[in-house]
Amino acid sequence: MDDLKKYHETNKDRYLNELLAWLRIPSISADQKFKGDVEKAANYLADQFKTLGMDNVKIYPTKGHPIVYAEKSVSPDVPTVLVYGHYDVQPPDPLDLWSSPPFEPVIRDGKIFARGSCDDKGQVYMHVKALEAMMQNHSLPCNVKFMVEGEEEVGSNNLEIFCKEYKEMLDCDVILISDTSMISNDVPSITTGLRGLSYVEVEVTGPNKDLHSGVYGGAVANPVNVLCSMIDSLKDGNNHITIPGFYDQVELVSTEERASMNSAPFNEQAYKEELGIQAVMGESGYTTLERTTIRPTLDVNGIWGGYTGEGAKTVLPSKAHAKISMRLVPNQDPDEITRLFTAHFKSIAPAGVTVKVQAHHGGYPVVIPVDSIEYLAARQAMEKTFGKTPIPQRGGGSIPIVALFEKVLGVKSILLGFGLDSDDIHSPDEHFGLFNFYKGIETIPYFYQYYAQMKRDAPV
Amino acid sequence: MDDLKKYHETNKDRYLNELLAWLRIPSISADQKFKGDVEKAANYLADQFKTLGMDNVKIYPTKGHPIVYAEKSVSPDVPTVLVYGHYDVQPPDPLDLWSSPPFEPVIRDGKIFARGSCDDKGQVYMHVKALEAMMQNHSLPCNVKFMVEGEEEVGSNNLEIFCKEYKEMLDCDVILISDTSMISNDVPSITTGLRGLSYVEVEVTGPNKDLHSGVYGGAVANPVNVLCSMIDSLKDGNNHITIPGFYDQVELVSTEERASMNSAPFNEQAYKEELGIQAVMGESGYTTLERTTIRPTLDVNGIWGGYTGEGAKTVLPSKAHAKISMRLVPNQDPDEITRLFTAHFKSIAPAGVTVKVQAHHGGYPVVIPVDSIEYLAARQAMEKTFGKTPIPQRGGGSIPIVALFEKVLGVKSILLGFGLDSDDIHSPDEHFGLFNFYKGIETIPYFYQYYAQMKRDAPV
Repeated sequence: MDDLKKYHETNKDRYLNELLAWLRIPSISADQKFKGDVEKAANYLADQFKTLGMDNVKIYPTKGHPIVYAEKSVSPDVPTVLVYGHYDVQPPDPLDLWSSPPFEPVIRDGKIFARGSCDDKGQVYMHVKALEAMMQNHSLPCNVKFMVEGEEEVGSNNLEIFCKEYKEMLDCDVILISDTSMISNDVPSITTGLRGLSYVEVEVTGPNKDLHSGVYGGAVANPVNVLCSMIDSLKDGNNHITIPGFYDQVELVSTEERASMNSAPFNEQAYKEELGIQAVMGESGYTTLERTTIRPTLDVNGIWGGYTGEGAKTVLPSKAHAKISMRLVPNQDPDEITRLFTAHFKSIAPAGVTVKVQAHHGGYPVVIPVDSIEYLAARQAMEKTFGKTPIPQRGGGSIPIVALFEKVLGVKSILLGFGLDSDDIHSPDEHFGLFNFYKGIETIPYFYQYYAQMKRDAPV
Repeated sequence: MDDLKKYHETNKDRYLNELLAWLRIPSISADQKFKGDVEKAANYLADQFKTLGMDNVKIYPTKGHPIVYAEKSVSPDVPTVLVYGHYDVQPPDPLDLWSSPPFEPVIRDGKIFARGSCDDKGQVYMHVKALEAMMQNHSLPCNVKFMVEGEEEVGSNNLEIFCKEYKEMLDCDVILISDTSMISNDVPSITTGLRGLSYVEVEVTGPNKDLHSGVYGGAVANPVNVLCSMIDSLKDGNNHITIPGFYDQVELVSTEERASMNSAPFNEQAYKEELGIQAVMGESGYTTLERTTIRPTLDVNGIWGGYTGEGAKTVLPSKAHAKISMRLVPNQDPDEITRLFTAHFKSIAPAGVTVKVQAHHGGYPVVIPVDSIEYLAARQAMEKTFGKTPIPQRGGGSIPIVALFEKVLGVKSILLGFGLDSDDIHSPDEHFGLFNFYKGIETIPYFYQYYAQMKRDAPV
């Protein structure tokens, strides 16, 4: 692998500049205004694949944003790795909290600051450059396929259709995904679990028009007050979610696993200081690590209603809205949870209001086995480049597509992420360490090498 | 008064066109962007007074928006009427719910549709035109002073200073205000009470930045969820406000007054249909009329936090905000209520968040005696033009200045309003009936006439 090391050394600045150019394209999938930029970002990636000399490079249109596909075959006798990632990004707001514009990447303190720098353009680009290095040095030990979508941040609504339609084209031995984080740069880890997601938007309507709060106040249900009460009632005093049936399918994690999980390095004081909070807050009976991994949640992601401008307006609004998401754990079914939420939320609405519930995207939780050849290859690759055995760790986020791959393609994924929880993905000042970017590019080829080896040596 | 009738007939179209021109000026006091338009509206009124040949017409600047003053003296032996009103208007949003642009007045179904048509430009203009008619016909029986401010919708913050500074100039026998409503065009009424107001804005801060709800969800206090719980806790299951001490000063209305109040014509079915609601909702043990007049309230006028754009964003926001107002009844003190709210709201904040409370404007509740010469003159004037005795009725809204006048000028006000509760003031499609506009212009001179008479005949 020395040739690769040299190659990386010689080309690292170009690697970075190419990524920065990609980050300058505001590929915000949630907002139709940016549809053109999302396409531009797809084209940029496709051009990269063509330059690398990959085969069947194609941009597949969907009902939503397009999917970029490319492949390179070396031999029918070696395993095939399917790299999945996404080139779309979260909306950058609130914009005023960014130290520098989200789509004008800058390097500060050895980090790339830009929306998408870590989630997920930066991590996708590690794979592109690792592949370039292997191809340029004639050391690509596996067949490789890339499937990079533009709708991950809005629920990957069209990917299932795509996977079903192109099942054969996507045939592979393992799916490699870098869209997660490590514990720290000194404590490498591999994500062995993901939470699922149910995301709903609710609308509470009181009177058929905004009213004067003096003339009608006190006699007519105020949809904002009502929405607040309804949201409050979704959790009890122990921050236990009150939706009937919500916990029925929740997997009970063994005392042993909880113990080993809680033995992972975690400094609550540092955690609180990092977030500027006096105290953590969550479900009674569980640690912070458990609350963010093996337990489901219910969070309001957005709320609005009435007068939110400057000064004071004495209005009794007609409508109030909220976006509410629930993180799910094995074996909760997102569709079932969405059904339970909807039925319950409508059932608790008082007579003075009407309630609408709209389901956004959902995703299934997943657990990754730690005894598979795929996991062992990933572990060995990280050991090689970090000099430490990575810790298996469940993640709190959701990549709905991982469960989908198992269902549709029948293939397990490996979550080989190089970001950090402190990278502020989905927040202002999202960033990605140069150390992490380059470490990823260095580690990925070892995964290919060890994986090809292990498959070759594995008893058929 | 026949000359006046003829004069009105001949000039009614001009009356209307002059008002429409005034309504075209977006004098929104809550929004600094409209500061210039607020001034324009003040100038428009001042020019009207000059054209009428009034004396000492002057626009008094304040720390906020200016006050328009004008006067006309006929004799030291007749009483002086001070007309108070405001030329500023509420913000028009939500704009998309207007059938026609708020500042492009149109006449539909015999009503003037425009922001400010009823509250309060339209009602102020009735007084201007009534005065014109009396002056043109040499039948002005009282001295008259006009004081029209531009900050009523934002709390009249600078009017107290003005009243104290110009106490002598404002010396008068009665203050006449048309900024309230009647029960209906067939059931004239005079407002004999107003609710006070305490208006606060709260900010709840959790983490020091927006977070990924997957990575942190479940372990960190979500300020939106927390704000909802805090707001919910401000009322109990009977919609009784839980702020300690909140009801301590509330005047207990006698069973008799409650009975007579509830004998006023009120059709709850029609009320619900008008608002498009299945049920009314309010404090247990009180009727709708009581809930909107003799009982205090707590309403969220606006709430916002997190992601409110298109699509789904899985963010755990750093901050959540709400504008909350409380309508007060005799003898609640708005400053004291604001203190009680602030102390209580901070006391119920959980450890994971910090809370800020900012006080907007407040106002004292008032009660108008029904046995004064002033009230009797108003009642007789309405009897004359409506052919019915007006019903004394408490209003649910707040005109903080009325209590202020009593305190600073030592003069009682008469609330001779010609609007209707259904005029959608503070709402989209605010309107004012032409019937009401012209009926006001017709009624006001009778008040002057009867008032001068009664004062002359009254035992000194």
